[in-house]
Amino acid sequence: MAVTEATPTPVSLSAVDAPDQPLVTPELEDLYRGFERELLIPLWTQIGDLMPLHPGSKASPHLWRWSNLVQLADRAGHLVPVGRGGERRAIALANPSLGGRPFATPTLWAAIQYLMPGEDAPEHRHTQHAFRFVVEGEGVWTVVNGDAVAMRRGDFLPQGGWAWHAHHNAATTPMAWIDGLDIPFAYYTESQFFEYGRDRISDAERITPPRSRSEKLWGHPGLRPVSQPEPTTTSPLLAYRWRDTDRALAEQLELEAGGHPGTVEPGHAAVRFVNPTTARDVVPTMRTEMHRVVAGTTTAPRREVGSSVYQVFDGTGTVTVGGSTWTVQRGDMFVVPSWEPMTVVSTATPDDSESEALDLFRFSDAPILEALHLHRAETMKDSR
Amino acid sequence: MAVTEATPTPVSLSAVDAPDQPLVTPELEDLYRGFERELLIPLWTQIGDLMPLHPGSKASPHLWRWSNLVQLADRAGHLVPVGRGGERRAIALANPSLGGRPFATPTLWAAIQYLMPGEDAPEHRHTQHAFRFVVEGEGVWTVVNGDAVAMRRGDFLPQGGWAWHAHHNAATTPMAWIDGLDIPFAYYTESQFFEYGRDRISDAERITPPRSRSEKLWGHPGLRPVSQPEPTTTSPLLAYRWRDTDRALAEQLELEAGGHPGTVEPGHAAVRFVNPTTARDVVPTMRTEMHRVVAGTTTAPRREVGSSVYQVFDGTGTVTVGGSTWTVQRGDMFVVPSWEPMTVVSTATPDDSESEALDLFRFSDAPILEALHLHRAETMKDSR
Amino acid sequence: MAVTEATPTPVSLSAVDAPDQPLVTPELEDLYRGFERELLIPLWTQIGDLMPLHPGSKASPHLWRWSNLVQLADRAGHLVPVGRGGERRAIALANPSLGGRPFATPTLWAAIQYLMPGEDAPEHRHTQHAFRFVVEGEGVWTVVNGDAVAMRRGDFLPQGGWAWHAHHNAATTPMAWIDGLDIPFAYYTESQFFEYGRDRISDAERITPPRSRSEKLWGHPGLRPVSQPEPTTTSPLLAYRWRDTDRALAEQLELEAGGHPGTVEPGHAAVRFVNPTTARDVVPTMRTEMHRVVAGTTTAPRREVGSSVYQVFDGTGTVTVGGSTWTVQRGDMFVVPSWEPMTVVSTATPDDSESEALDLFRFSDAPILEALHLHRAETMKDSR
Amino acid sequence: MAVTEATPTPVSLSAVDAPDQPLVTPELEDLYRGFERELLIPLWTQIGDLMPLHPGSKASPHLWRWSNLVQLADRAGHLVPVGRGGERRAIALANPSLGGRPFATPTLWAAIQYLMPGEDAPEHRHTQHAFRFVVEGEGVWTVVNGDAVAMRRGDFLPQGGWAWHAHHNAATTPMAWIDGLDIPFAYYTESQFFEYGRDRISDAERITPPRSRSEKLWGHPGLRPVSQPEPTTTSPLLAYRWRDTDRALAEQLELEAGGHPGTVEPGHAAVRFVNPTTARDVVPTMRTEMHRVVAGTTTAPRREVGSSVYQVFDGTGTVTVGGSTWTVQRGDMFVVPSWEPMTVVSTATPDDSESEALDLFRFSDAPILEALHLHRAETMKDSR
Repeated sequence: MAVTEATPTPVSLSAVDAPDQPLVTPELEDLYRGFERELLIPLWTQIGDLMPLHPGSKASPHLWRWSNLVQLADRAGHLVPVGRGGERRAIALANPSLGGRPFATPTLWAAIQYLMPGEDAPEHRHTQHAFRFVVEGEGVWTVVNGDAVAMRRGDFLPQGGWAWHAHHNAATTPMAWIDGLDIPFAYYTESQFFEYGRDRISDAERITPPRSRSEKLWGHPGLRPVSQPEPTTTSPLLAYRWRDTDRALAEQLELEAGGHPGTVEPGHAAVRFVNPTTARDVVPTMRTEMHRVVAGTTTAPRREVGSSVYQVFDGTGTVTVGGSTWTVQRGDMFVVPSWEPMTVVSTATPDDSESEALDLFRFSDAPILEALHLHRAETMKDSR
Repeated sequence: MAVTEATPTPVSLSAVDAPDQPLVTPELEDLYRGFERELLIPLWTQIGDLMPLHPGSKASPHLWRWSNLVQLADRAGHLVPVGRGGERRAIALANPSLGGRPFATPTLWAAIQYLMPGEDAPEHRHTQHAFRFVVEGEGVWTVVNGDAVAMRRGDFLPQGGWAWHAHHNAATTPMAWIDGLDIPFAYYTESQFFEYGRDRISDAERITPPRSRSEKLWGHPGLRPVSQPEPTTTSPLLAYRWRDTDRALAEQLELEAGGHPGTVEPGHAAVRFVNPTTARDVVPTMRTEMHRVVAGTTTAPRREVGSSVYQVFDGTGTVTVGGSTWTVQRGDMFVVPSWEPMTVVSTATPDDSESEALDLFRFSDAPILEALHLHRAETMKDSR
Repeated sequence: MAVTEATPTPVSLSAVDAPDQPLVTPELEDLYRGFERELLIPLWTQIGDLMPLHPGSKASPHLWRWSNLVQLADRAGHLVPVGRGGERRAIALANPSLGGRPFATPTLWAAIQYLMPGEDAPEHRHTQHAFRFVVEGEGVWTVVNGDAVAMRRGDFLPQGGWAWHAHHNAATTPMAWIDGLDIPFAYYTESQFFEYGRDRISDAERITPPRSRSEKLWGHPGLRPVSQPEPTTTSPLLAYRWRDTDRALAEQLELEAGGHPGTVEPGHAAVRFVNPTTARDVVPTMRTEMHRVVAGTTTAPRREVGSSVYQVFDGTGTVTVGGSTWTVQRGDMFVVPSWEPMTVVSTATPDDSESEALDLFRFSDAPILEALHLHRAETMKDSR
Repeated sequence: MAVTEATPTPVSLSAVDAPDQPLVTPELEDLYRGFERELLIPLWTQIGDLMPLHPGSKASPHLWRWSNLVQLADRAGHLVPVGRGGERRAIALANPSLGGRPFATPTLWAAIQYLMPGEDAPEHRHTQHAFRFVVEGEGVWTVVNGDAVAMRRGDFLPQGGWAWHAHHNAATTPMAWIDGLDIPFAYYTESQFFEYGRDRISDAERITPPRSRSEKLWGHPGLRPVSQPEPTTTSPLLAYRWRDTDRALAEQLELEAGGHPGTVEPGHAAVRFVNPTTARDVVPTMRTEMHRVVAGTTTAPRREVGSSVYQVFDGTGTVTVGGSTWTVQRGDMFVVPSWEPMTVVSTATPDDSESEALDLFRFSDAPILEALHLHRAETMKDSR
């Protein structure tokens, strides 16, 4: 199934990336040809690329405009049917420096998914972990192991690996949202399994309950069902509603206004979506957070090992990642590669009472790096 | 430092890897060109490659002969000096299907390292985890954070990330050994840090104590220094001596002969090298083991998620990995890609009393997969 | 401070608790006198008591009526001032079989606490873990590390060890509630530390905010402040409000009605109060839960290692613990000793629409037993 | 089985242990009588005893002389048969301040066990964790789940709860050793289960192999059987031999002599016996260690929460615990109650080349306190 190449790639020593190479003599050239024949590559020609002083990402900072994403997704909605085989009308961000692969960063997949009114996406399951985040609209339902979960603006919906899931659009208008998955990491580690489910979910699953079963069981602060004492690898809570997220962010800012700790830094509140059975990330491979930067605030430049993808949920601002600076607005998506510093300036016009803060949804591969003790982060407090 | 490309790679939809594609119309072609302009790639053209039913590795099974490795390393010993910049005379296995990179598998680096008599390899440290394993010879010392550790046939020497280390050959003959590192994984996750140390270690560190400080503190079965109660990420025990490994394997076979559990399967003993502060793998990213397959034994075919590199320590046999079969002997190295079944037949001639078993050193990326709950393994018991 | 006895207690062998004792001869009597002189006791005379086939608790099942507790607390409110030295107007349950000590069970302390209008209980801190639970009334505030937390009917308020805390009654009526602590366990393990704080809290802490700081930071389902990534030993959430607890129980019963899992057994919903930084018990030594048994339901007899204290929050029913059976109503407290089977029958009168279920608050020492791998539980499903 | 009292103990308020009690009036006396009737005890009369500023142990420091223990055990060997019912010829230390119970400390049981030549102690199992430590002699075998393990001077033999075990003396002389168990803690927490096994072990189990099966599988430093990847609650290694322990202590002192860390403090080496599947204590309730204090060394006074029992393995010295000071020699046992400071002076005569150090075996309840986050320790460095 995966593409493996039949003929060995010749080993090339032409692109030496290390200082102080030995003088090239006929004997050395002959030795290097011997290495090539035996499929060997010396460290001393490669060490600069392989073992740098600090990470220098293969990926580039890049911004995708939501208006373009939605427009192309809508055209695909009219031209490309959804069904078994292609499975989903999902269109992925392809980082310009990652060799034309559909990878937003080396580890993360990010896509816009789009369903026309009345459409179904067929049931399947896979070991790749996923989530959905809704920047606008409503009407689509995701059905996870038979539990129908509504998707609405601001909602975050984790989708742990190996759970059966399908989608259907019960509304009279198309709906777009974003999918995040660890597809590149699973591809790299060659750990993927996939199974097809039913082509269509049952009518009983097309119900539209106000609250999913998962929320009834797990959606209560600090309360755990006595019937479910064991930790699970992925979150059993299938929807984190905007009403809760919004309130948590607002209350952190209230604490800050009262002189109490709670925010990440002045004017910058943030919550992490966590698995209620462990209080850790919702899936083992991705961290998911919502950040609120109050208008007028500039965040401290920060860099960390590992990569992130952001989507602007609301507000406007200016984002700088490494050498790139963009003005951003609702829905825009951008990538922060490993060890690239990032800073955000939240802007607002006086007459725009709705956009008093820049709300940013973020996901990253931090749990991978933390689990393996490879994580480092650095905040440059004084550099503004 | 790392090679990042200045010009975006064009996104190509020419190599579609999925069934049931929509009919190509001028409108669809126009849409696909729109995707390319916006750096987007649809899932439905890629899903077969990205989300296969089970892992199909990008890497190939491959064997490297020790005689060839040593011969080329020796030639390099005469032509290429060891020093600051190149850092080590290490020559890496380059899997024929991994694009000409010095990667034995997608996650693992394996190399032969070689030091001429009297040579020093300068001190440095890096976040990549490493180990050394000695298939033959002695005389080289590795100096880790000032602790001089002898290296001799059969010894396993873990080298946790971010520890200072240098090597020197105190013997009158060259010496070869193998290095294993997680360089490809660190490269992929972009988590590498590196620092140069002293160009030469001190004379006091050139001593040749019979037992390193690490062994005095940590080399006692079931006994932990009261002064060291906290777990550490990597093993503080810097040498696992062949005498202990050999005895552990022999005693597992004694237990089996007495009708008691202990071996992995009949005729197949195995020990894992573990961190004495946690009883888990010596480093967070690599599993390291020694296997002994008694002559006449055929191991059950087994496959697992994640990749391994093996080196034959002693004995002879036939190894089958996926569709490849090799006869192997001392020093030969081979690669087992993710989800490829492997089986071993241990052979021996009646008059070869020394080689009554095939001893195999193995390292793998299993701790990465286990930490992230991505590991699966399968033994096909009946397929012989 | 603790009472230690100056004169050795004579060792007595008169109360032998084991079968098959050796024949008493003059020589044996002389040996036993030798044991007594040397402060020695043979196992063979004691094994029946010390090492029984299964636990047989030193404590008795017992019920305390809330009406009596409140009446005596109120009389104490008029006779005994609250202040430094006595610290709290708390009156503890003394199990009739625990030697006249103020211990509800061998490990657990349970008391009614009572504050008159305008009264203050002075600030202190101790390593013993505590909680408060409110069966009726409101108006008292607990101030924990400067955070003022309202106490109202149905609220559960954990109080992790070593946090400063004081109480004040801001209402015009007295208020009673229950305290649960691990005082007997701390007394037994001799692990207690205690410090006096301020005699009076500041006026700024007498504010009556609708929501404590702890709730603003931690009271959101599945959302963790990014500024607080580390687990803490005790819960940072200082109030678990009745509105949330009630809804969680009701939704478990809704799930059950829809044919979905969620309840502990048919007609029996239950939630555990957990630390939002770990999803485990709010303190390391006590488990705290709220149970709802629907009218008409009889719970399966169940016994477990370790002891519990219950308080009836609402409804009426019949409770059987070991050989004791009581009819219970709001506020009544009872004790379940280790390994004693317990069953509950929830009753209701047709015209009492409010009391359609028996709500039981429970606390136990289960986390102690689980942390040490000593926990066992058994449900006798068929014995009704 | 356990002794529970049929008639309630009257609650007494006569022994008030708290300052600033309210003035005794007829009304107060009447209230207190009301409390007594309802089985209630006010906190304000008890707080000084229950919630002291720091632990003040109920137990006393005490020393038992080995010569007395052995003499009485030998007399018991001639008078009291070993068999089903009494189970073991074990004679327990009864702390003089613990009410005449066979408890060395509130949590720990310590006993001398004694077997005559040819005697058997019958098989049983219990949830209480145990160990044996041999201060002198050899010849007894302990058979654990069918694995025959020799016991010799200096050996430490853990015995995790719920394992079947028997003993037999294969020698021609009696043998004594000490048993340590968590009997008092299990008694207090009421968590004990017990089962009888075979009255006599089989002849096949009477073999005397030089090395037990457990040692063959687990007795190799840093090496774990691949067939046993899961952690276990108690140690699978059934014997920690003196040769290893002695060498580990000697090598810590060698490191110290070379200027390297390793010892606990100057002249004081110590190792902890650990479970090779977790690198943590051999059983969840007891810590076991061997300490070596070089002649001429005085250890820094140290106190900690929780209690310990020591046995002198070799050498002579002076031990101070709280207000008690004893000179000690081989086999002597003493108790260190919670929070009592302890210091040791190791002494030696110039012509006594064998006793150049004081070797102390120690066991404590520290894992209980650590698991529940109740542990505190304090070293007073300057007080000599």
